[in-house]
Amino acid sequence: MSEEVKPESVSLYPASAAATPEQEVVCIFGTGDLGRSLGQRLLQSGYRLVYGSRKPHSCGPIPPGAQVMSHEAAAQSTSLVFVCVHREHYDFLETLAPQLNGKFLVDVSNNLEKNMYPEANAEYLQRLIPGAHVVKAFNTLSAWALQNGPSDANRQVYLCGNNPEAKQAVAVISTKLGFTVQDRGSLSAARELEDFPLQLFPEWRLPMRLTVGLTAFFFFYLLTRDVIYAYVNEGRDISFRIMMSLANKVFPSVSLILLSLCYLPGVIAGFFQLYRGTKYKRFPDWLDRWMLCRKQLGLIALALASLHVLYTLIIPIRYYVRFRLAGSTISQIKNNKTSSFDTTMAWRTDSYYSIGALGFGLYLLLGISSLPSVSNALSWREFSFIQSKLGYLTLFFCTFHTYLYGWDRFLYVSQYKWYSPPGYMLCLVVPSLVLVFKLLLLLPCVDKSLSRIRQGWERTDPENDSKKKSLLA
Amino acid sequence: MSEEVKPESVSLYPASAAATPEQEVVCIFGTGDLGRSLGQRLLQSGYRLVYGSRKPHSCGPIPPGAQVMSHEAAAQSTSLVFVCVHREHYDFLETLAPQLNGKFLVDVSNNLEKNMYPEANAEYLQRLIPGAHVVKAFNTLSAWALQNGPSDANRQVYLCGNNPEAKQAVAVISTKLGFTVQDRGSLSAARELEDFPLQLFPEWRLPMRLTVGLTAFFFFYLLTRDVIYAYVNEGRDISFRIMMSLANKVFPSVSLILLSLCYLPGVIAGFFQLYRGTKYKRFPDWLDRWMLCRKQLGLIALALASLHVLYTLIIPIRYYVRFRLAGSTISQIKNNKTSSFDTTMAWRTDSYYSIGALGFGLYLLLGISSLPSVSNALSWREFSFIQSKLGYLTLFFCTFHTYLYGWDRFLYVSQYKWYSPPGYMLCLVVPSLVLVFKLLLLLPCVDKSLSRIRQGWERTDPENDSKKKSLLA
Amino acid sequence: MSEEVKPESVSLYPASAAATPEQEVVCIFGTGDLGRSLGQRLLQSGYRLVYGSRKPHSCGPIPPGAQVMSHEAAAQSTSLVFVCVHREHYDFLETLAPQLNGKFLVDVSNNLEKNMYPEANAEYLQRLIPGAHVVKAFNTLSAWALQNGPSDANRQVYLCGNNPEAKQAVAVISTKLGFTVQDRGSLSAARELEDFPLQLFPEWRLPMRLTVGLTAFFFFYLLTRDVIYAYVNEGRDISFRIMMSLANKVFPSVSLILLSLCYLPGVIAGFFQLYRGTKYKRFPDWLDRWMLCRKQLGLIALALASLHVLYTLIIPIRYYVRFRLAGSTISQIKNNKTSSFDTTMAWRTDSYYSIGALGFGLYLLLGISSLPSVSNALSWREFSFIQSKLGYLTLFFCTFHTYLYGWDRFLYVSQYKWYSPPGYMLCLVVPSLVLVFKLLLLLPCVDKSLSRIRQGWERTDPENDSKKKSLLA
Repeated sequence: MSEEVKPESVSLYPASAAATPEQEVVCIFGTGDLGRSLGQRLLQSGYRLVYGSRKPHSCGPIPPGAQVMSHEAAAQSTSLVFVCVHREHYDFLETLAPQLNGKFLVDVSNNLEKNMYPEANAEYLQRLIPGAHVVKAFNTLSAWALQNGPSDANRQVYLCGNNPEAKQAVAVISTKLGFTVQDRGSLSAARELEDFPLQLFPEWRLPMRLTVGLTAFFFFYLLTRDVIYAYVNEGRDISFRIMMSLANKVFPSVSLILLSLCYLPGVIAGFFQLYRGTKYKRFPDWLDRWMLCRKQLGLIALALASLHVLYTLIIPIRYYVRFRLAGSTISQIKNNKTSSFDTTMAWRTDSYYSIGALGFGLYLLLGISSLPSVSNALSWREFSFIQSKLGYLTLFFCTFHTYLYGWDRFLYVSQYKWYSPPGYMLCLVVPSLVLVFKLLLLLPCVDKSLSRIRQGWERTDPENDSKKKSLLA
Repeated sequence: MSEEVKPESVSLYPASAAATPEQEVVCIFGTGDLGRSLGQRLLQSGYRLVYGSRKPHSCGPIPPGAQVMSHEAAAQSTSLVFVCVHREHYDFLETLAPQLNGKFLVDVSNNLEKNMYPEANAEYLQRLIPGAHVVKAFNTLSAWALQNGPSDANRQVYLCGNNPEAKQAVAVISTKLGFTVQDRGSLSAARELEDFPLQLFPEWRLPMRLTVGLTAFFFFYLLTRDVIYAYVNEGRDISFRIMMSLANKVFPSVSLILLSLCYLPGVIAGFFQLYRGTKYKRFPDWLDRWMLCRKQLGLIALALASLHVLYTLIIPIRYYVRFRLAGSTISQIKNNKTSSFDTTMAWRTDSYYSIGALGFGLYLLLGISSLPSVSNALSWREFSFIQSKLGYLTLFFCTFHTYLYGWDRFLYVSQYKWYSPPGYMLCLVVPSLVLVFKLLLLLPCVDKSLSRIRQGWERTDPENDSKKKSLLA
Repeated sequence: MSEEVKPESVSLYPASAAATPEQEVVCIFGTGDLGRSLGQRLLQSGYRLVYGSRKPHSCGPIPPGAQVMSHEAAAQSTSLVFVCVHREHYDFLETLAPQLNGKFLVDVSNNLEKNMYPEANAEYLQRLIPGAHVVKAFNTLSAWALQNGPSDANRQVYLCGNNPEAKQAVAVISTKLGFTVQDRGSLSAARELEDFPLQLFPEWRLPMRLTVGLTAFFFFYLLTRDVIYAYVNEGRDISFRIMMSLANKVFPSVSLILLSLCYLPGVIAGFFQLYRGTKYKRFPDWLDRWMLCRKQLGLIALALASLHVLYTLIIPIRYYVRFRLAGSTISQIKNNKTSSFDTTMAWRTDSYYSIGALGFGLYLLLGISSLPSVSNALSWREFSFIQSKLGYLTLFFCTFHTYLYGWDRFLYVSQYKWYSPPGYMLCLVVPSLVLVFKLLLLLPCVDKSLSRIRQGWERTDPENDSKKKSLLA
């Protein structure tokens, strides 16, 4: 209670009746890069600024307009202190504990790598000065944004802390500097905030590795079958096909496999739950990790599918294709025998293109619905309708598109060069399995017991099970 | 005031000076699926958990680490209780009113359908236990998200309630579980929150039905004119055209009509306001409903336009098209007469493609600007500039594209198979009307009085009008 | 403190124990368009509404259900007053200062243009009635949204003010009307909020002007070289090429230059910092302005690149192209000499298309990552990885694509019609320079000193520098 009548907290919330044009004072400990960048911005936003320094008279350049004092004097001049020193030097703050008692301390520090220290910097600071109210904030912004204001990925200040008034005071400053604020809860969230700037697409690593692996496999497999085979067996150099024809076989193959890998873990999880008769047992770790990267798998699959579409549409302007078409017309005339129109061929190829186009349209819809702002606007019933129902439809369309591409080729021995199956057959294995397993799960009897399990029903005797679980846990 | 010094509220906001590693205690009433899912997550997030149960000694499996007590004992152990029982069983809580006095009750319940009960579950709970502070929260999340943490459409906890401290306490728990919080105001918003998880694209229903109807109409109309006519009159089977050629006529036709239907209600509303001489009278219900689904109409129109573009670009790789082009070349050589280059034809077709491409570009721009995160970043002046000015430009380009497609075909009797006009003529009616009406509204004299009306001016005597309105209301 | 026990603030936060169905009263000063629109919505949301008017008995039409009183009486009936009068008439409010003391005043006003008055309307209001708590809010919404509730660009109520209770009360009303609230800090942010509705893409103006200029230049340059040259020198009318061929040269040229202009300022800034030996000196104004519109430059470049892709894919369905291809086949047969397949040509053109497609894919990725909701979900390390690393890769791919397009054409004198270089050469100048400069900055020795400067290191003696800066400032 008493905090609300403290003079410093009042100065941050000027009562309207007493609103004076007097500037609010904030303090920064540390005159390094971070302190100077943040200081420039604070001065521009109309704050009075005091630096705390060990050597106030020889502390290096500070932004014009700011004052420099000893740490003790600086701390007493304000209620809010930004701690812009490295964690390694925090220990000297312990000596300032009396001056910092009841003050709001803003920890803006980051580490160079994860798990360098057993506790978060902000929690360490709180432990050093238990009488102060530590708030973790601003550390997710780049130094550029601290100096120049918000820009694209630097709009939000995430903050956390145990004291609501301290958080409120930091929030007021943040909005004044032009940022929007997101409260992440108590100081125990500091670790998470400190790890955030270090991350570089952690959840994309596994899917990217898988993509690179599959792409390399299909590239060399098709290179051998298409280009090297022609060179060895027929002495023809068709290596130019690598740039377009080969790429346009690799992209859709990998894309289809990745798409089916989005849906495979859900099917496996269903069988796990059916087998165990409960939904309360944790899945194996590999399945959990797999399920968490489904979105990334799907987005990479979409990117490759888009490239496939683009490469396919480029086909008719290629030199090679025009040359072949003209050659075929010329040979028809020279041999004086016109090929007749094949209606089955027309049906088959048109269906192939049409199904592919519709599949790609659905694919795009899945992609759009996973944009954060779109998925946030959906209820989870709507989101799961799109991602599950429309997702399986997409997988079915794309698989069917590939079967239409293959048609009856699997019957011809000439397709099995060096006894290896064509690439499209390889990429059909996983999606076909996923669709078959999904159909099994949709059988009325299976679907019914799976639904009951997912609503919390358990097959075995509850008492026994709870004992089992307690033993396992 | 007094609430802030209550021990339980303090335990949720540990004063930093007294910050102990002691875990906070929360209580869950009900050991069903929801209670167990939520409980697992709370335990993982570091809370101590107490279940309240009618039969504490035989209540079925609970997550390991949690305690089970009677409802009375459980309620007394904590300041915050999650009510995870079905609304039908709320009445037993009335007997616990003394123990629950001053506690924060979190209502997480949903109903199976809308309007099952006269009042929201949370309001009913508040009425049963007037001394408690009911907060509606977590009900918009799936059970999966409650157990496993936030995922795509399950990131936000919407909460509402009459007591700010209770809401704050629930917000703290929500952020600790990893969710972001959006405060939806007082408890009277509970009904809205309870209806949210039940909805499945309610605002898309009317536009989807319209789309299905128009698509079916154009499909059968064009099937009759193109495929069946050729079979009946000429005995040719060209049914393979259904997959690509026919689809590529249906998609753009329906798309253009849907796009014009986005702009028709605005034009009609303008005429209504001009006729009535005021903007304060409500529009008829059908017009209101129509105006509310303009965005959905536009997005479906965009999806169909995208399919039209994709199908058009596929044309040159089709077997049928390649066969025809080769055939035409061969016949030119056989008959030894080369067709001469037609500059008008080149101008016309190139303009047709160019206008279409630009129209589609604008179309995409409209679509992108209606993504929630983009439209939120725009001022309404900017948004209405894009949606109105650029929207009419898009409609004009697309209509003009269709007129260029038609060119002088309307002059030839052979186009009117079985006395029916070609499909492209049918789809030009509504867009042409919208553009003409819009031009009328842009006439200086009309525009001026409409602007005055929209700024609040009323034609008739204000006194009379207000009396009229009071009588009508 | 005392404010929290004031009856009016209590009425906005009904204590749950005393929750009565009694409606809250709000007051609106002014019965003009804005007052009536807002009033209708407030009444629909369940508020009791009192209008304050100078002539309560002849104030014109008001929404049915509302009361009209004198300003004095209206002010006393409630704790919260919406001021819906024009700023020009604010002075009369001074006489109501005693009645408005301690009340929450909501300023919803906008001006017709920027900088009409020396201070923001809300700050002027606060100065007139120092005893009231002024909150600026609702002014960013359209009158349509005030009357009919939230729609696309009208979802968020931005508010600012010095008194937290007043802001909280307005936030409660906003959420009840269906809007989401964003707190923009103290009343000094009012000016920014008042300017918001007036803006029409201010940051897009410079990039748009540049685009129009470059487009006009390339259009007339290529028109002269391609169409007019052919007409003057050979008497051929190939003006039909304007619609597709010419456009498809203008779009990619301008797009490539704009993309390189996104990366040029960053390179220049690097050289500035190297030369000055510090990062703390401000860049020249033109460089700052340039850097602030890089995102817009990039998005326009992406739009033009998309049109280039679309126009390119349309090529094979053009009448002119089909005519030429058929003509070439026919002439081969007539002259009885078949052209032989050129593997180098196949490699070159396929690489050209493939690199272009990959470049466009990366381009799209850059575009998607600059959607607000996507960039907010990225850490700045991730964002700068995409925008910087992938951005330079995109620029390299697109520049390489253009070099492959040119190939050895620069060797042929016939390409230099009227002594002018082909268009593709002109558009290669800036991107090539940017890539060369970037390579220079990536040289290990240069990169190292630039990194040190960006981490805050300064070349000159700090003492001297700080004096220099103080003198310059």
